[in-house]
Amino acid sequence: MLRCTLGPRAGPVHRGRQISTRGRPGPPRFQRGSCANVSTNSTVQAAWDHLKSLPKPTLADLFAADPARLETFSTRLELGEEAGGDGIRFDWSKTHLDAAHIAGFDALAAARDFAGRRAALLNGEKINNTEGRAAEHTAQRGVGRESSVEEAMALHGRTKALVEAIHEGALGPIHHLIHIGIGGSALGPALAIDALARHGAHVHVHVVANIDGCALEAALAKADPETTLIAVASKTFTTIETMTNAHSALNWLKEAGVEDPYGRVVALTASPDKAVEWGVDETRVLPFPESVGGRYSLWSSIGFPVALALGWDGFTEFLEGAAAIDRHFASAEGAENLPLRAAYGDQFYSRLMGCQTRACFAYDERLALLPDYLQQLEMESNGKAVTFDGAPVDGPTSAITWGGVGTDAQHAVFQLLHQGTHVVPVDFITSIAPGHDLDPAHHRILLMNCFAQGAALMAGRHSDDGARSYPGNRPSATMLIDDLSPGTLGALIAFHEHRTFANAVLLGINPFDQFGVELGKEIAKSIEKGGAQFDPSTTALLAEAGLSA
Amino acid sequence: MLRCTLGPRAGPVHRGRQISTRGRPGPPRFQRGSCANVSTNSTVQAAWDHLKSLPKPTLADLFAADPARLETFSTRLELGEEAGGDGIRFDWSKTHLDAAHIAGFDALAAARDFAGRRAALLNGEKINNTEGRAAEHTAQRGVGRESSVEEAMALHGRTKALVEAIHEGALGPIHHLIHIGIGGSALGPALAIDALARHGAHVHVHVVANIDGCALEAALAKADPETTLIAVASKTFTTIETMTNAHSALNWLKEAGVEDPYGRVVALTASPDKAVEWGVDETRVLPFPESVGGRYSLWSSIGFPVALALGWDGFTEFLEGAAAIDRHFASAEGAENLPLRAAYGDQFYSRLMGCQTRACFAYDERLALLPDYLQQLEMESNGKAVTFDGAPVDGPTSAITWGGVGTDAQHAVFQLLHQGTHVVPVDFITSIAPGHDLDPAHHRILLMNCFAQGAALMAGRHSDDGARSYPGNRPSATMLIDDLSPGTLGALIAFHEHRTFANAVLLGINPFDQFGVELGKEIAKSIEKGGAQFDPSTTALLAEAGLSA
Repeated sequence: MLRCTLGPRAGPVHRGRQISTRGRPGPPRFQRGSCANVSTNSTVQAAWDHLKSLPKPTLADLFAADPARLETFSTRLELGEEAGGDGIRFDWSKTHLDAAHIAGFDALAAARDFAGRRAALLNGEKINNTEGRAAEHTAQRGVGRESSVEEAMALHGRTKALVEAIHEGALGPIHHLIHIGIGGSALGPALAIDALARHGAHVHVHVVANIDGCALEAALAKADPETTLIAVASKTFTTIETMTNAHSALNWLKEAGVEDPYGRVVALTASPDKAVEWGVDETRVLPFPESVGGRYSLWSSIGFPVALALGWDGFTEFLEGAAAIDRHFASAEGAENLPLRAAYGDQFYSRLMGCQTRACFAYDERLALLPDYLQQLEMESNGKAVTFDGAPVDGPTSAITWGGVGTDAQHAVFQLLHQGTHVVPVDFITSIAPGHDLDPAHHRILLMNCFAQGAALMAGRHSDDGARSYPGNRPSATMLIDDLSPGTLGALIAFHEHRTFANAVLLGINPFDQFGVELGKEIAKSIEKGGAQFDPSTTALLAEAGLSA
Repeated sequence: MLRCTLGPRAGPVHRGRQISTRGRPGPPRFQRGSCANVSTNSTVQAAWDHLKSLPKPTLADLFAADPARLETFSTRLELGEEAGGDGIRFDWSKTHLDAAHIAGFDALAAARDFAGRRAALLNGEKINNTEGRAAEHTAQRGVGRESSVEEAMALHGRTKALVEAIHEGALGPIHHLIHIGIGGSALGPALAIDALARHGAHVHVHVVANIDGCALEAALAKADPETTLIAVASKTFTTIETMTNAHSALNWLKEAGVEDPYGRVVALTASPDKAVEWGVDETRVLPFPESVGGRYSLWSSIGFPVALALGWDGFTEFLEGAAAIDRHFASAEGAENLPLRAAYGDQFYSRLMGCQTRACFAYDERLALLPDYLQQLEMESNGKAVTFDGAPVDGPTSAITWGGVGTDAQHAVFQLLHQGTHVVPVDFITSIAPGHDLDPAHHRILLMNCFAQGAALMAGRHSDDGARSYPGNRPSATMLIDDLSPGTLGALIAFHEHRTFANAVLLGINPFDQFGVELGKEIAKSIEKGGAQFDPSTTALLAEAGLSA
């Protein structure tokens, strides 16, 4: 099988697992592909027309026709020592991609100026054109525009200093952190904490997102006000859920008689002035740049709870895992580029096979929140209906991304995967090393089940009894990590970020805005304000609930 | 608006919130509809052809054309005093159903002999024809075949006696229950405990499903072996995940020096002999009937952890809430029948609009697990490709059912709902009464957001800037409960059970088997056994993980 070595480092190197706050020599500007500015709708259309014309052999036929299929479609990526030394195998051999489709998608990527868009992303150009902003989450990992990387390192230095001061007892004994945020400010920290901080965490982190007070109440019940910090994570520091929860958490500290409750609050925000105005002490404000989007913000100061739980070295390894993927993504071309190749598969099933969904099943209890994280990443980024220049798209955009945890899901939803009428392309993600000290039978059975599901989906089995017949020819990919660690988790997430970006490029859309969420917020506000007219159903529901418009 | 009163009680009445174990006078046999045995493929086809020929006005047009639309499509169901006295409003006015479609689906239901199938279900006939079994979960709620209801009451008496003995200290002080089960044996208890037992529970229940030892390890870390019971929930008492976890949990008790660890195990099973053989004391075996399917088993002894946490009165109210829906379902005709009407909507979006998914968003933190529960219920029941007589289906079956919790999901996936290219029919579920004692602002904002989302999806808003334009005309339904209680939760779940059944009837499929999960299990076993040949990908993955086939 191919062993895919990382390309030349495109970003600053972080040696010794310490991210320094000093400026470092920046990378050369990423090269634009030669076809920048020459793509037109007609070349894109021609690429799609060709793709749609290709035959679609079954998985069995594909394996039969090509003895080297496994070699071609299975790749192991080494993340490097700074990311903890582990690797990840990506196996797409049980999907329907073949050489003809790969070539067709390569042509589409060229027509969409993939290389140019990638360079624009990594050079910090204003690729989020509708909001006039760059999208510089990779700079948080040390890969990107020199000035942005320098700024990120300086801000990381601030976070590191606060984390280490807390560990050293500067704020007294701290055993709990109530982390308050929603959307990207919650899903990333919740995932990383659940995945990495089950054992030996410096503090217990409780993530609270929902405006429903039941969420905060449950977290408060687990914490002791005397030894609890509150992190308030909001890019704008105006998110209504987060600010309402922050107020109630402050009241809880006050009612418990905590002296200087505001001194217990850390703000994670791109609006540091607003945080100070709200009452947070300047020394506890950890800013992040406006160019880091909410659903890409785990790498910035939004990662504070992760750093506080794991320690700074662990957080650095997490960033390094992501940076290893960034460097691969920056330099690998065509189908050798793993996130791009994954996007080829996504577009194949979405546009050529009519699949409205795709699923991710993590065969690892610690990754139970990963499907939710990926759901936001993909659906909020690519659930759009216009291209980046505002024209209507000419086909489906983001698939509905769903999933669960194995083996649980086998007993819940796999019936439909095997025998339902909707084909769902599936990703399996699992770890060779177990995450626990119980009987090794647990992990052996877990892995065997994971691999057996992919085998069964592909093979199927005919029976004359229709109820006991399995059609087979159903696709799955497998990501097999050596061990779930900060480095491999960082890599997995960054892989999916770039896969999402690659999908956006193939679709010609801007993945970095999210105007779709605005209208509902505005209507909620106009309900609160009163006096507006709504449809009869909304009016009646408000009345039944004792609220009036 | 219509106030839908419950039909005549079709099952035994449970007075005083105590389910007696004595036999009671059974119901009259449920009446078959007049068209039993006369449905043919051609009448079904004609009904579909007619449905497909109907015009599909926009939501705005539907409201404009019919001033009584809200009255017609919004119904409040009272659950009755024994279920706690609350009600639920079902509002389907913001879906695309109109009088013509309702009439068309009524014709389809008649062609599929809905009344006859419903009677067969409730009379305990072998409606699960591929396994030669009845599907008698309603009997657990007191509605169904007389002998089955009597058996259920006798078994409930056994569970009640054990629950009350534990509460009275017969097993010493018990503060924790590790409930081990997977699929239906886990999702139901986990949902009910999270929804209902946040305050004042008799014991802390920790539900463990995954074979991945990380799941059990996390639960054990929260419990004290001296005061912990283990419940082992498996219909067959052979489920590999459950038995492996049960073994490890027993070892944990042994290693902690607990005397008589087997005496701390309660078995919830339809195979009581196997449980005794495994080592469980006969007095701690709580059987349930073979005719109760795994994903419908929460009402049987699988509900033991719920009864132990809430107390028997709470569990009885839960059963009564479900029974209220059973009685409504048994007696209401056509579109007055709420689960059937919901199924009309499901089929409309699936077969007439091409939606591969539908989503449920619970605007209640306590119902965070409801979407997972409904996902299994619907996808494992109706994710099939053959009719109940084994012929291939002629169109899509179960939608992929997904969702999340509001307001969290607004900040994660609602972008796609509002502006994506895939239309997703959405159910919103929320409670008028809050579940917490924090500032009322939390709940007011929660409800306003819930209603605002439905309003926004329907209304949309045009902008000349494509990125800021919302197409609108997107459907949602709302279920507004007075208060989340054992009774309303029981009703919500039973409503969805019958909705799933009604969908199966309209599709002509058997929702009660699940052969789709068998092939993967068999392949996993053959991997474990060794010597079998697999495809090159599976073989390579096994080798990389250090396992061999």
